[in-house]
Amino acid sequence: MKKSILNQYRFFDPDEKTRKSAYELYLKVKNLPIISPHGHVEAKLLAENRPFPDPTELLIIPDHYIYRMLYSQGISLESLGIPTMDGTPVEKDHRKIWQIFGDNFHLFAGTPTGVWLRHELVEVFGIEEKLNSKTAMKIYERMVAKLKTKQFLPRTLFEKFNIEVLNTTDSPSDPLIYHKKIRESGWKKRIIPCFRPDAAVNIMSPKWKDEIGAISRISGIDIHDYRSFIKAFENRREYFKSFGGVSTDQGVETPYAHRLTEGEADAIFQRALKGQATDNDAAAFTANMLMEMARMSVEDGLVMQIHAGAMRNHNRKVFDRFGADKGGDIPVRAEYTRNMHEFLNEFGNNPKFTVVLFTLDETTYSRELAPIAGHYPAVKLGASWWFHDSIQGMTRYRQNITETAGIYNTVGFTDDTRAFLSIPARHDLARRMDSNFLAGLVARHIIDKDEARSLGKALAYDLAKKAYRL
Amino acid sequence: MKKSILNQYRFFDPDEKTRKSAYELYLKVKNLPIISPHGHVEAKLLAENRPFPDPTELLIIPDHYIYRMLYSQGISLESLGIPTMDGTPVEKDHRKIWQIFGDNFHLFAGTPTGVWLRHELVEVFGIEEKLNSKTAMKIYERMVAKLKTKQFLPRTLFEKFNIEVLNTTDSPSDPLIYHKKIRESGWKKRIIPCFRPDAAVNIMSPKWKDEIGAISRISGIDIHDYRSFIKAFENRREYFKSFGGVSTDQGVETPYAHRLTEGEADAIFQRALKGQATDNDAAAFTANMLMEMARMSVEDGLVMQIHAGAMRNHNRKVFDRFGADKGGDIPVRAEYTRNMHEFLNEFGNNPKFTVVLFTLDETTYSRELAPIAGHYPAVKLGASWWFHDSIQGMTRYRQNITETAGIYNTVGFTDDTRAFLSIPARHDLARRMDSNFLAGLVARHIIDKDEARSLGKALAYDLAKKAYRL
Amino acid sequence: MKKSILNQYRFFDPDEKTRKSAYELYLKVKNLPIISPHGHVEAKLLAENRPFPDPTELLIIPDHYIYRMLYSQGISLESLGIPTMDGTPVEKDHRKIWQIFGDNFHLFAGTPTGVWLRHELVEVFGIEEKLNSKTAMKIYERMVAKLKTKQFLPRTLFEKFNIEVLNTTDSPSDPLIYHKKIRESGWKKRIIPCFRPDAAVNIMSPKWKDEIGAISRISGIDIHDYRSFIKAFENRREYFKSFGGVSTDQGVETPYAHRLTEGEADAIFQRALKGQATDNDAAAFTANMLMEMARMSVEDGLVMQIHAGAMRNHNRKVFDRFGADKGGDIPVRAEYTRNMHEFLNEFGNNPKFTVVLFTLDETTYSRELAPIAGHYPAVKLGASWWFHDSIQGMTRYRQNITETAGIYNTVGFTDDTRAFLSIPARHDLARRMDSNFLAGLVARHIIDKDEARSLGKALAYDLAKKAYRL
Repeated sequence: MKKSILNQYRFFDPDEKTRKSAYELYLKVKNLPIISPHGHVEAKLLAENRPFPDPTELLIIPDHYIYRMLYSQGISLESLGIPTMDGTPVEKDHRKIWQIFGDNFHLFAGTPTGVWLRHELVEVFGIEEKLNSKTAMKIYERMVAKLKTKQFLPRTLFEKFNIEVLNTTDSPSDPLIYHKKIRESGWKKRIIPCFRPDAAVNIMSPKWKDEIGAISRISGIDIHDYRSFIKAFENRREYFKSFGGVSTDQGVETPYAHRLTEGEADAIFQRALKGQATDNDAAAFTANMLMEMARMSVEDGLVMQIHAGAMRNHNRKVFDRFGADKGGDIPVRAEYTRNMHEFLNEFGNNPKFTVVLFTLDETTYSRELAPIAGHYPAVKLGASWWFHDSIQGMTRYRQNITETAGIYNTVGFTDDTRAFLSIPARHDLARRMDSNFLAGLVARHIIDKDEARSLGKALAYDLAKKAYRL
Repeated sequence: MKKSILNQYRFFDPDEKTRKSAYELYLKVKNLPIISPHGHVEAKLLAENRPFPDPTELLIIPDHYIYRMLYSQGISLESLGIPTMDGTPVEKDHRKIWQIFGDNFHLFAGTPTGVWLRHELVEVFGIEEKLNSKTAMKIYERMVAKLKTKQFLPRTLFEKFNIEVLNTTDSPSDPLIYHKKIRESGWKKRIIPCFRPDAAVNIMSPKWKDEIGAISRISGIDIHDYRSFIKAFENRREYFKSFGGVSTDQGVETPYAHRLTEGEADAIFQRALKGQATDNDAAAFTANMLMEMARMSVEDGLVMQIHAGAMRNHNRKVFDRFGADKGGDIPVRAEYTRNMHEFLNEFGNNPKFTVVLFTLDETTYSRELAPIAGHYPAVKLGASWWFHDSIQGMTRYRQNITETAGIYNTVGFTDDTRAFLSIPARHDLARRMDSNFLAGLVARHIIDKDEARSLGKALAYDLAKKAYRL
Repeated sequence: MKKSILNQYRFFDPDEKTRKSAYELYLKVKNLPIISPHGHVEAKLLAENRPFPDPTELLIIPDHYIYRMLYSQGISLESLGIPTMDGTPVEKDHRKIWQIFGDNFHLFAGTPTGVWLRHELVEVFGIEEKLNSKTAMKIYERMVAKLKTKQFLPRTLFEKFNIEVLNTTDSPSDPLIYHKKIRESGWKKRIIPCFRPDAAVNIMSPKWKDEIGAISRISGIDIHDYRSFIKAFENRREYFKSFGGVSTDQGVETPYAHRLTEGEADAIFQRALKGQATDNDAAAFTANMLMEMARMSVEDGLVMQIHAGAMRNHNRKVFDRFGADKGGDIPVRAEYTRNMHEFLNEFGNNPKFTVVLFTLDETTYSRELAPIAGHYPAVKLGASWWFHDSIQGMTRYRQNITETAGIYNTVGFTDDTRAFLSIPARHDLARRMDSNFLAGLVARHIIDKDEARSLGKALAYDLAKKAYRL
């Protein structure tokens, strides 16, 4: 039987001395508590604390990292059980779906998805066989059995994973009932909301008016113009803060910020209410909302995050049939120096303000983001994100950013995951890659071992805590 | 005497264990037959099977990789024997030209051209002296002698090189007489045409009308409007298929696709016939032809290739005096996510369709191409191309693409060469670099040796065969 | 006591064989004289040859590399003693400032600034303690004592540093009195001016008219129109040549060149004189001046340099309060292929002309600059610049450029520094990184040791001398 035992030196540079030094550094941070300052695990999971469903529903159906790759090789999303928008039936036999996954697991060779899954199987489920056509069903049954045990309840895993704080990501209209439930349950773990108003900011979205209505209802502020809209935002941010929230987040295609006058903003808002807004209106409104959200952050102290660079729902056929977040988002070029000029001039020097920038365009690392973060006190750089949350991606991030921005203008690791089980896998990978990067600096006599140890702890724990004011 | 013996471990990482592991992987693929799914060797060479001319005419005069570098250092193209468009005499003494090459061979240190040439000298000609001022003439004479022998006839080399299939690149108006001749000669090797209609698509080219005329004649379809133009394309594609053709290719400055209505396309076509087309017309027409060619590929099964990103004939002085393809093509930025949106939405999900994308803009690897290929079933990524067909270029390609697109959304190696003698050198380099990349994954415990062996074979042989339906 | 002894193998690859080979190559170039073909040290320093002031005034207050990083972490520029434009008092206690630096020296871990500073402390001052909170004052006092000695006079250090030629950077209106003084002093060292007319080219600058006036006065040419403006330039270039000047330099946000008619240029010039020029005028004027400066270089033989890609004074608050060059310049994307098309077509093939291109946009290395330099005889590539003058930056530069442009289309190292004491540190780093790069090629059997030695000398010495016609 082929085993996929996780080598202790995995992901480190082959050079023997670097590898050992990386491992020593890694051992110092391996067991530090996990700070997860941004992600998409839902509070409901930990509020209800119900057993996880079967492996397919747990690991495949919700994870677009996995099925986009299978889809790219001609495997239909229907056959993988991805639910359709119109309810057209899809594969219901989860064993059959898992078998397809096993048959095609070789596609993930060299990908972070492959790395995380192997970690989950071995470290969470204790399964050391390699996943393939032959072992798929046997592994499935073992996982099913494990998932029924108490050790696999979400809260038990949360504690086992040693998560100190977990940020969810929530819409302004979210009543945060599950956050409330967790608090009321007496379970003392820190699950906090993050204010992400994309649905309320994107005036072209078909769901925009619903979201505005929902925010009106929940805030008790009748949103009928731009001013009441902003008031409702401020109100909801306070509500999020009352549940321990420390941050906001915005996802934008282009990181462009520009303030409109209130009159301009309101005119757009009114057109949007009448369904007459244009694409240009939407772009201007989003640009303005980046300014407004920064202004609010200065006032209420929430750390601002901007995730820029994905063209959402690029594949319309997949979007129409299966909805959003189905692996069909494709990055576009980003530009920060000119686009964020007004924003940085207004807020970049403000000591009360922190903005964490994430990008999908790696060319901006050394050209724009590192020089910006290495100068403006308000700017910190978020971890390498999404497609770049990977061995090479993290390596490129550190290599391109560190020399200009240093280590201390970055914020440590952000797992940004929907897959609860992958949280330790992702943090473990990040801790390994950071240890390896630092070991490389030691090997080249750029820093010494003492410095490396202190930087290692900063990257694994301190920086996230500090940047997000946790 | 200084020797340039080819070290068995050449191009592998210095780390001893990685190097040995790379070498083991390389040995498994070293002798696999060569699949050359895209290139510019002419069928005539193998149809006529005449002895090669002298080393200068064989290796220097036709190879813009070589003389662009000499030119960049102030050596005139005339002194290198590059023929002028107007017949102005140029250097005719091929020994003198070879001597210049020898005098300046140090310029190629660290370049793939240097690597390939050394391979050719040692492996094809059995010459182990280092090429330099002193040895140039001695080496020349030895090559001359070898080139006169039967062992150096094109077909003999073809067999020695173990080429399983060689794609040529041909215009729609090409009668493919040499492909025919090869078939009729009884020589059983597979030399197949690739349909590349750039000259017929680029309505601004001074040769466009000639090409249209030639296609009319050879297809027997009178091309007088857009509809007959398209019909003739379909006709010629069938003809290419009858000679074993499996693919098409288009070279475009910008990878932008957008369908015109037939009326719009015809209006442009009519303006072009009258010599009144504008640059905008040409861009729109090319964008439309990408859509049309994809549509035809869905129907006739030819694999579509797009080579994007070169601004052709950047150096007008060189172009005016020496013509096209003289080393004066310079890459420009490319953008796929927005520019290919319509294309991918119409064809990207079609299981009958394969498009292979090549780029000269490496920033698109991780940002756009890998996410696109890691999602759309119709898209595969072509090998690192032209300037990037090199040790570092291939390394960057794998490092930037694999984590998001995996190995199986790439198509193996494409030599894309005009230089017949360099085919084994180029494939050997690619096999070495892929082996080295895989050995790096093994060394980091990302994949195991079994997986590496299977991926190695895929990269060296299987993927090209499968992607191009060979 | 923690020591920061400089390891002899520092910055080399960890692989033992590569490292040793890099070290051997480095030893061959370590003591070669320094050619500094571009930088910002002022002639005054060496003309007056006065003792350096204290460490803070020497190393912190003039070095935006250092205080931008401190500023990015929330340390005010006032507390670092950076003088304000309006004379608002700032921290005057230089010991206090140095203490802040010591308290925060960990921020520079992994940055070139950290590397240079360590080199300066150890190699120039003989101080081996690590700089930190505890040692800061002790180190300060030792430096103060050293700076008072004769060994630390600028000329003594110049000789100790083994600088063969040092280029300053000077405005056309500069009388070059300090260059004159040096010549007249009988001190035989070669300090030569470089003609940098940015202040006279940028018609939007508030200081433009002053600069035009100053050039009028010093050249004796009354500048009242475009023609007289150009004449004055030609006149001043001759003056610079008479002091040994061999080069010009221009800093532009966008590397765009396009010739205006004299009428067009004059119309803009007249608008500028009236204070009516627009941003578009300024862009067109700059584009035209790149053409004019190239034309002049063809005529007078000065080597042209273009430093492109910084958006100057991005942070207006810092600019308004502290002036230019305070760490608030942020790079923007650059494009050469289309933007420099006209320029390269007019001048790129001219054997009398050399232009050295520097970029802040690393994506142009492999995509545009290497193909351009690997073809156009007039084009050479300047060293990795500014933010990229670093261990990883130099590595990326060589890895991305060499395969297409070779080594001989680059010009060796350019320190480009304002910090006189950092010159040997910077050249030492460059020599180490180039040795390491070459050792990597040797380790991979791409070049042999003889070739590496010859290339090493070229990179450390020969190429700069040749390219700049020194």
